Amino acid sequence: MARIVMKFGGTSMAGIERIRHVASLVRRETERGNQLAVVVSAMAGETDRLVQLCREAASLYDPREYDVVVASGEQVTSGLLAITLQGMGLNARSYMGWQLPIRASGHASALIDHIDADVLERVFGEGGIAVIPGFLGVTSEGDLATLGRGGSDTSAVALAAALKADRCDIYTDVDGVYTTDPRIVPRARKLALVTYEEMLELASVGAKVLQTRSVGLAMRYNMPLQVVSSFEDKPGTLIVGDDAIEDRNMERNVITGIAHDKNEAMVTLTGLPDAPGSVAAIFEPLAETGVNVDMIVQSVPRRGAPSVLTFTVPTASLAHSVAELQKVKETIGFDEIVTDTDVVKVSAVGVGMRSNAGIAAKMFKTLADRGINILAITTSEIKVSVLIPEEYMELAVRVLHTAYGLDAEDEE
Amino acid sequence: MARIVMKFGGTSMAGIERIRHVASLVRRETERGNQLAVVVSAMAGETDRLVQLCREAASLYDPREYDVVVASGEQVTSGLLAITLQGMGLNARSYMGWQLPIRASGHASALIDHIDADVLERVFGEGGIAVIPGFLGVTSEGDLATLGRGGSDTSAVALAAALKADRCDIYTDVDGVYTTDPRIVPRARKLALVTYEEMLELASVGAKVLQTRSVGLAMRYNMPLQVVSSFEDKPGTLIVGDDAIEDRNMERNVITGIAHDKNEAMVTLTGLPDAPGSVAAIFEPLAETGVNVDMIVQSVPRRGAPSVLTFTVPTASLAHSVAELQKVKETIGFDEIVTDTDVVKVSAVGVGMRSNAGIAAKMFKTLADRGINILAITTSEIKVSVLIPEEYMELAVRVLHTAYGLDAEDEE
Repeated sequence: MARIVMKFGGTSMAGIERIRHVASLVRRETERGNQLAVVVSAMAGETDRLVQLCREAASLYDPREYDVVVASGEQVTSGLLAITLQGMGLNARSYMGWQLPIRASGHASALIDHIDADVLERVFGEGGIAVIPGFLGVTSEGDLATLGRGGSDTSAVALAAALKADRCDIYTDVDGVYTTDPRIVPRARKLALVTYEEMLELASVGAKVLQTRSVGLAMRYNMPLQVVSSFEDKPGTLIVGDDAIEDRNMERNVITGIAHDKNEAMVTLTGLPDAPGSVAAIFEPLAETGVNVDMIVQSVPRRGAPSVLTFTVPTASLAHSVAELQKVKETIGFDEIVTDTDVVKVSAVGVGMRSNAGIAAKMFKTLADRGINILAITTSEIKVSVLIPEEYMELAVRVLHTAYGLDAEDEE
Repeated sequence: MARIVMKFGGTSMAGIERIRHVASLVRRETERGNQLAVVVSAMAGETDRLVQLCREAASLYDPREYDVVVASGEQVTSGLLAITLQGMGLNARSYMGWQLPIRASGHASALIDHIDADVLERVFGEGGIAVIPGFLGVTSEGDLATLGRGGSDTSAVALAAALKADRCDIYTDVDGVYTTDPRIVPRARKLALVTYEEMLELASVGAKVLQTRSVGLAMRYNMPLQVVSSFEDKPGTLIVGDDAIEDRNMERNVITGIAHDKNEAMVTLTGLPDAPGSVAAIFEPLAETGVNVDMIVQSVPRRGAPSVLTFTVPTASLAHSVAELQKVKETIGFDEIVTDTDVVKVSAVGVGMRSNAGIAAKMFKTLADRGINILAITTSEIKVSVLIPEEYMELAVRVLHTAYGLDAEDEE
């Protein structure tokens, strides 16, 4: 008997037919004698619809009320899955985040503080299946909180950790983690095994299989994660610690995968005075209101002259970021705020990179050869990322996939 | 300064444009210096959609999980209205039923036990506006509960009573209470004043302006109710106690209005043995599971012979009722359960009826003259109702409206 947290994404929950299929997957695990907590996302498209409603109601909406609105999507699917499982004769019921409770801090992109396992231990003791809306928590003030887009993965991993589960299975509409997006590169290969670290970079740069935070959390608790298809019955990708897959390193490519991320917007501030603390004064209000600033490039034409500062923020935070920047414009004294959402971040990721020089150089050369202009660059121990105009996305991903030797030999 | 509970129905909340209009009506009341609690329904069609999802998930769904699913509709609109009011610079926020709390018993058609006014008194003390999802409560076990279809009216009145409000204004898509459905009878007249008792009968027989329970509750607490249009700025209908409108009795018609109700299904049990307690044994399980049995007709061909029992239940309870009846079929020993949903209940209502004979006789004759077959009859002090085949609905309402002298003189 194993204790497993199963998580189903929005495409898996899109409509009653699919929910019925999800229920059959849950039943299969029950028949294997496993204890199950099932975490569900809202139906595909539903959260977008709810977010859009909030935006239409007011361009700068109260995150607390936003949470009240968007929390409803997962509430619906958890109730429907519980009903469907009961219809199959299984002992299932739903538990809202505020009922367990799943304690969280903040709104709209809240952080999970603590999950009380008592209720669920009692459910398991009685042979029950718990269905839990992903993405939701409750603040210490007793208000609804949501974890930010894709937060259901994080809910699932946090729950698995709190329950000391044996594994957390993420059921989704892809059958595993690939070297890159197979819709862009038909010769992309499925990876059987990935380290948390690699997955973290792949996720954070847009391989949208798993949410970054969920992978970070799994790494911290050393919780084995399995990405597996809801729709096809075949092996997925297992994500584990570096130590667990040493054997395979011999065969490893230096680069594990190429990722892309369209959810970044570029912000450029012109005429920024060369005063001490002016850059800090720009990023402080953004950080305080929870905006994740990513790539930062500053060009100072000459000492003492006004400079140009470019950085990226998540597209969803752009309006909010611009509003925050407008507030400090007078005080700091820059000229203009220019924004561009037609950009994409493309990254090469791999733990093998640590011991290899020339990875970044190869990237710049490969892109330059195709006339692709690089707007910004960031690097880490295991990845190199560039910001490029969005129109070159597919081309850039394809040529890099080939350049790093990731193309499959033949169709697999 | 008055304390007012404003309630907005589904059509008033259908989409951001309409929610913005609702917000402007709330602002107007604020500008008059009134303290406001605003109760909202789900967007028109949303609850139907959610109920349908539950039905598709399992034909006999767990009411507890049903509540989890359908509660989401009001949650969404309350968050959206709070956001919109904030966008207008008003100090508003939403409070879920489980946050106040609004204590309720049961599921799917829960009853409100108690509303704690402390949180809202504090909100009013700080000059705030509270937005509250209608239709929702929380059980003593801490589970979501919904009050049954149309429950938002009941939420609003219960809240008005708990807050000792001066008035409860029900904003809806009609501009008041009419002598009958104006879509069926163009010469229907709007009533300026109706008693709770009359409204109770009009509501319970299908004048869908207000939910029955809400009127009963208003009567118990003597809470003035005002039905007013969300869309047109003109006087609505005030619903008050008998005592408050004695003056107008001189001019009153004997009949105040003609109502119809399509949400009834007819159930017929054939071959029911003439044994003591067999009728009780049929209605007991229905009552215990919360089914409201309405019109009951029993025909016994002769003493000791098996009889035919006919009664009506709300269409929504039909599947459940049949399932309950199947369980006792063996024990009681009747032959068959026949159901018919193509029926409609038509009623003539008026406090003036108390002192007038011949009201029922006029009804039967008027219908008989048009060849309309009466399937069942019930009467009360202030109404006469008949069950007829649905296809005759419009005809029956029209001829009765004329027969009781309710037609407007000229177009008003």
